[in-house]
Amino acid sequence: MKVGLLCPVWFPVPPEGYGGIERVVAILADGLVDAGHEVTLFASGDSQTRARLDAVFPDAPSEWIGHTFWEMRHAVHGLKRSREFDVLNDHTGLLGLALGGLLDLPFCHTVHGPLEGLPGALYDDVLDLAPRAKLISISMNQRAPRLGFPWIANCPNALDLSMYPFRRKSGGDYLLFLGRMSPDKGAHRAVAVAMEAGLPLKIAGKMREPKEQAYFAEFVEPHLGDGIEWLGEVSHGQKVELLQHARATLFPIEWEEPFGLVMIESMACGTPVIATARGAVPEVIQHGRSGVVVDDYRLIPAALEEADRLDPRELRRYVEERFSPLRMVRDYVKAFELAVARARA
Amino acid sequence: MKVGLLCPVWFPVPPEGYGGIERVVAILADGLVDAGHEVTLFASGDSQTRARLDAVFPDAPSEWIGHTFWEMRHAVHGLKRSREFDVLNDHTGLLGLALGGLLDLPFCHTVHGPLEGLPGALYDDVLDLAPRAKLISISMNQRAPRLGFPWIANCPNALDLSMYPFRRKSGGDYLLFLGRMSPDKGAHRAVAVAMEAGLPLKIAGKMREPKEQAYFAEFVEPHLGDGIEWLGEVSHGQKVELLQHARATLFPIEWEEPFGLVMIESMACGTPVIATARGAVPEVIQHGRSGVVVDDYRLIPAALEEADRLDPRELRRYVEERFSPLRMVRDYVKAFELAVARARA
Repeated sequence: MKVGLLCPVWFPVPPEGYGGIERVVAILADGLVDAGHEVTLFASGDSQTRARLDAVFPDAPSEWIGHTFWEMRHAVHGLKRSREFDVLNDHTGLLGLALGGLLDLPFCHTVHGPLEGLPGALYDDVLDLAPRAKLISISMNQRAPRLGFPWIANCPNALDLSMYPFRRKSGGDYLLFLGRMSPDKGAHRAVAVAMEAGLPLKIAGKMREPKEQAYFAEFVEPHLGDGIEWLGEVSHGQKVELLQHARATLFPIEWEEPFGLVMIESMACGTPVIATARGAVPEVIQHGRSGVVVDDYRLIPAALEEADRLDPRELRRYVEERFSPLRMVRDYVKAFELAVARARA
Repeated sequence: MKVGLLCPVWFPVPPEGYGGIERVVAILADGLVDAGHEVTLFASGDSQTRARLDAVFPDAPSEWIGHTFWEMRHAVHGLKRSREFDVLNDHTGLLGLALGGLLDLPFCHTVHGPLEGLPGALYDDVLDLAPRAKLISISMNQRAPRLGFPWIANCPNALDLSMYPFRRKSGGDYLLFLGRMSPDKGAHRAVAVAMEAGLPLKIAGKMREPKEQAYFAEFVEPHLGDGIEWLGEVSHGQKVELLQHARATLFPIEWEEPFGLVMIESMACGTPVIATARGAVPEVIQHGRSGVVVDDYRLIPAALEEADRLDPRELRRYVEERFSPLRMVRDYVKAFELAVARARA
């Protein structure tokens, strides 16, 4: 199959630090090539891929993130070449969806964000304009606020497991929080859990935007010290090291997280995740096998011993089974075949 | 005729300070209503118009200027309603052009910016995707780099002349530069002219972006003092006052300026403009009647006396004749009729 993959252009594929979508698209591009497909990846020129790379920008224009002019140049360049492919799979967001959905071609758009509130309303409007567009979800929960959208497949994210070596021996002594500095993600709830449990906590994540900085300053920074440590944005190597030595990873979200890559990263390293039952959590963690799912973050301290009892090798096997690149690539190929068939019909 | 006008959403219509496009759209909306058409204006909620205002945002989201998410919300909202109109006229830029051009409806897009370099290349790509789109230019010179585009009309900008009262008595003693702090616009060339002529110079304009600040600090600021004065961004009232009392307005551009509203603002106040013959200058100024056009900015000092000899009342008449709202509205109505006819054909 000739596949065009349109990735967001703000970070290279794969990204060095932050960039969950770019990480998933990197795996998808390489996996499709390995499965014998002819893949063109539209991404910034500093990307690394086994697909053919077509880049408008030599370097990812990260400083222009979210700006129409840059996004248009990139998206329109990919869309212009769309007739060369059997299917075009867009990961860029609403601009790619609107333009691709209006063109008469086999096109499917992967929804990476949540569909509640404003983004959901904008999806409503765009699909109103471009009703032929076809959508791929990354969890079934993500669809909940918009079950009537033109979904054609559910393709949960995957990990390149070779980048998460399994070297776990015994449980570490600290709790770990990895995530953006945002009330949704809940670093402040992780702090409360650590204080309650009397355990050290390491916090790492993105804090670039003014909102993230304000949240950090008000809700996280005052509690630092006494075993609660802020590490800033860490590299992939540091992240893996942190995961390998943690007692448990905390995922105390209070929003409808559409996936939650950190959970599978942690389980791949053999480190159990204790998470609140929101968003895709119950789809990503098999409670009692690969992690512990609680109804309220206040129940996390009491769940620590249950997490300690989980078998790290079983966690690794679970991720290999459910979140391998091979599985994701198979899901996407099925989705592409469906998109082609629907476009013909 | 039922007309939808899609304006950029970053500033209210009309704008308080900077915002040339919003100023022109304000005149067009009111003028079309006065001519008996049924007009819906898509703009921010803090706009003032005689048309029906439809606003996604209660206040202009100026702090998000250029961001896809905000622009998409606004543009998609207007486009969703497009079937209610006989014609939709877009002033937003490439996003509106791409989406509107892909929809099957009478749609025309006014090009407000230049078509050279990167913007031109992006217009190429977008029109490749949406070849049915129809374009309106604001000067014939603007078309020069892309004569093959699907132009349907040339509709030069207009002024609300009641906002530029003609109160000129005798020529003032200072030169005036009004414009963004950018090398293209040439505040530094105005400084050189004032120094050469030994005359005071007042400079006013937008200096918000880092690039504008850097240009100002390096090329303008060092020359302040000794009669060369920086006034910052001025209100409409201050601008008119400055124009009414200037000896001449300098327009020493060195780029393909697609229109140049300042020139007609100055002439409306009876103040002659001395401009370099680039971009639309020869279309906006009638050399020897409404201003003086020179080949090189170094020739401006020698042209001052020629400008002094021009009759201020004649300058005013010239603008009333060529750049009145009535003329612009007539041009646009003809363009809309053509867009409707072409869409039917």
